[in-house]
Amino acid sequence: MKLIEYDDASPEVREVYDDIRRTRNTDYINHLWKVIAVHPPTLKRTWEEVKAIMGAPGSLDSLTRELIYIAVSVTNNCEYCIGSHSAAARAKGMDEAMFGELMEIVALANKTNRLAIGYRVELDERYK
Amino acid sequence: MKLIEYDDASPEVREVYDDIRRTRNTDYINHLWKVIAVHPPTLKRTWEEVKAIMGAPGSLDSLTRELIYIAVSVTNNCEYCIGSHSAAARAKGMDEAMFGELMEIVALANKTNRLAIGYRVELDERYK
Amino acid sequence: MKLIEYDDASPEVREVYDDIRRTRNTDYINHLWKVIAVHPPTLKRTWEEVKAIMGAPGSLDSLTRELIYIAVSVTNNCEYCIGSHSAAARAKGMDEAMFGELMEIVALANKTNRLAIGYRVELDERYK
Amino acid sequence: MKLIEYDDASPEVREVYDDIRRTRNTDYINHLWKVIAVHPPTLKRTWEEVKAIMGAPGSLDSLTRELIYIAVSVTNNCEYCIGSHSAAARAKGMDEAMFGELMEIVALANKTNRLAIGYRVELDERYK
Amino acid sequence: MKLIEYDDASPEVREVYDDIRRTRNTDYINHLWKVIAVHPPTLKRTWEEVKAIMGAPGSLDSLTRELIYIAVSVTNNCEYCIGSHSAAARAKGMDEAMFGELMEIVALANKTNRLAIGYRVELDERYK
Amino acid sequence: MKLIEYDDASPEVREVYDDIRRTRNTDYINHLWKVIAVHPPTLKRTWEEVKAIMGAPGSLDSLTRELIYIAVSVTNNCEYCIGSHSAAARAKGMDEAMFGELMEIVALANKTNRLAIGYRVELDERYK
Repeated sequence: MKLIEYDDASPEVREVYDDIRRTRNTDYINHLWKVIAVHPPTLKRTWEEVKAIMGAPGSLDSLTRELIYIAVSVTNNCEYCIGSHSAAARAKGMDEAMFGELMEIVALANKTNRLAIGYRVELDERYK
Repeated sequence: MKLIEYDDASPEVREVYDDIRRTRNTDYINHLWKVIAVHPPTLKRTWEEVKAIMGAPGSLDSLTRELIYIAVSVTNNCEYCIGSHSAAARAKGMDEAMFGELMEIVALANKTNRLAIGYRVELDERYK
Repeated sequence: MKLIEYDDASPEVREVYDDIRRTRNTDYINHLWKVIAVHPPTLKRTWEEVKAIMGAPGSLDSLTRELIYIAVSVTNNCEYCIGSHSAAARAKGMDEAMFGELMEIVALANKTNRLAIGYRVELDERYK
Repeated sequence: MKLIEYDDASPEVREVYDDIRRTRNTDYINHLWKVIAVHPPTLKRTWEEVKAIMGAPGSLDSLTRELIYIAVSVTNNCEYCIGSHSAAARAKGMDEAMFGELMEIVALANKTNRLAIGYRVELDERYK
Repeated sequence: MKLIEYDDASPEVREVYDDIRRTRNTDYINHLWKVIAVHPPTLKRTWEEVKAIMGAPGSLDSLTRELIYIAVSVTNNCEYCIGSHSAAARAKGMDEAMFGELMEIVALANKTNRLAIGYRVELDERYK
Repeated sequence: MKLIEYDDASPEVREVYDDIRRTRNTDYINHLWKVIAVHPPTLKRTWEEVKAIMGAPGSLDSLTRELIYIAVSVTNNCEYCIGSHSAAARAKGMDEAMFGELMEIVALANKTNRLAIGYRVELDERYK
């Protein structure tokens, strides 16, 4: 795994790193950013998207957004994403009970998804 | 799709249908239950699990649970589950803006999951 | 959906259709074959693989093979494959109870897979 | 990975551990249970479900159930589940040849699922 | 499915529609855009991303990009995406033989992915 | 992980190893083959399929085939396949910029797949 450190980064990459630090109020840049920095347009676009979708004001609170993110990451089996977003969720208030409930809902949905698919259940008229 | 209607159901199946009606305060039994009723142990176990995990008191509110459920169902492409749980979420207060934000987070997580996987990013020591 | 019918097929495609008919002891060629026949190497290779893996003598009986096939197809949400292999399994002896048990195992595994993934459970030394 | 050992467990968790030991006729509690014990309702519900679906008498024999379980776990890429259920299947009689055939069917189904999906094959009238 | 038509669209949405038309040199706005227009930030961000990633100059030619897109969409079973991007690929030069080869590679990779996963093959030192 | 080395292999397995070496013009046999050699029919069939689909003359060039293969493997999260086929692609000319673009397209498609699925977008008449 090749990490692009700040000192070796181009001005374009540094600008994104600076914005991550300002926005998150931390000096730490986590691995994902330092790895995808090898392709600066991906770094810039992905960071701007994450910043807007996970951080901008909206109807869903910040913790709920993290829970949704984890639900997807567990379903897709992305170990990095589960680890990093579980940390983010804990920083935003997720306790053990909430994590436990989240896991049960994710597991349940993965189960009932397959019951609906395997039995080829058609959507009720009233839900269309 | 074969639906087991109340009048044709065994006492065991009727008992579950009655509990669904009581719990949800509605006469309507949606297709999933009427289809899996062909195998009564699945009906009973799944309903009891859904009732406990989606409905019992806990740390996550009822709407948040539905949002998590939808996030999984979209990732797995379960049309039935997206349709029925979007209806449930709307009944619990999800408006267009919330659905729009939910979809953006689900889409974003599916994207960044693959960036982390494709670049084989290792988890930061501090997130372990 | 473009179906290549026997009368319009090249000799190469006809040879595969003939082998399907002989092997399955039926005149009926199902849609999958008639569609992928547009690319004859896919038709030939896939049929030979299906014939060998699903039909040749081995340690697993013919019905068990179909159950495994359905388990994968439900997990992947392949409607065509669920439909056609459920028919095949029924022809080989799968009754309603077996299908019901199959669906419960598939649903359960999809659930516990996510518990193991979400909780990042490491494999026990003795199972390595 | 935090493991809840018997000596540190609540009575509620111990009861499940005791039942696992009795049912499986072994002293060993594998990691999955010790990890999800952090959220006792998940432990209890999941164990009861596994016990009933994988262990109770039914139409499918015990080894066939494990094969189906492995098929799903490989498709979902759950390393823990592949490892632990392959061990269980071996204990129930799966030999190398059976594992080899299982893998070929799982691989084949994952392949043909995508042919059916990519070519957008519609289900034959007779399979509906 | 609710489609936001140009005449009913807000200035913000119209601006994106205008850019789609200019960029693609067509009057036709396909369904995806008209549906996600219900949440304008998703429309704007997604269009700008698609425009840059699928359309801007780069190392991969335009047809190769579409083939990669289809490969992902078939693996994920996204019917809409398979249909719309197959049309796009055909417009950029994909013929029947290329589509046939694409499908075979996608199917093969889905197969061998599961062989590597099921047999738990560790990466060769030289590929790390 | 049990590797079947050439010296311990049956004549049937050796024949495949010899063909891999001849075809790829290298002495190195990578792990996948040495592992699945435990079940010789899988080894033989899979190698012949890979040889034909990835190596035979056709409409898609050899590098494009590898890019498609990687796109599927990232979507499925197959670490072995990503590692081995990224190496193969590099040997065939993939540079950092191409890999970066490939990852962005794969990530984008995984994102828009879920937008189309979550919003339940129906295919435009003209793409059918």
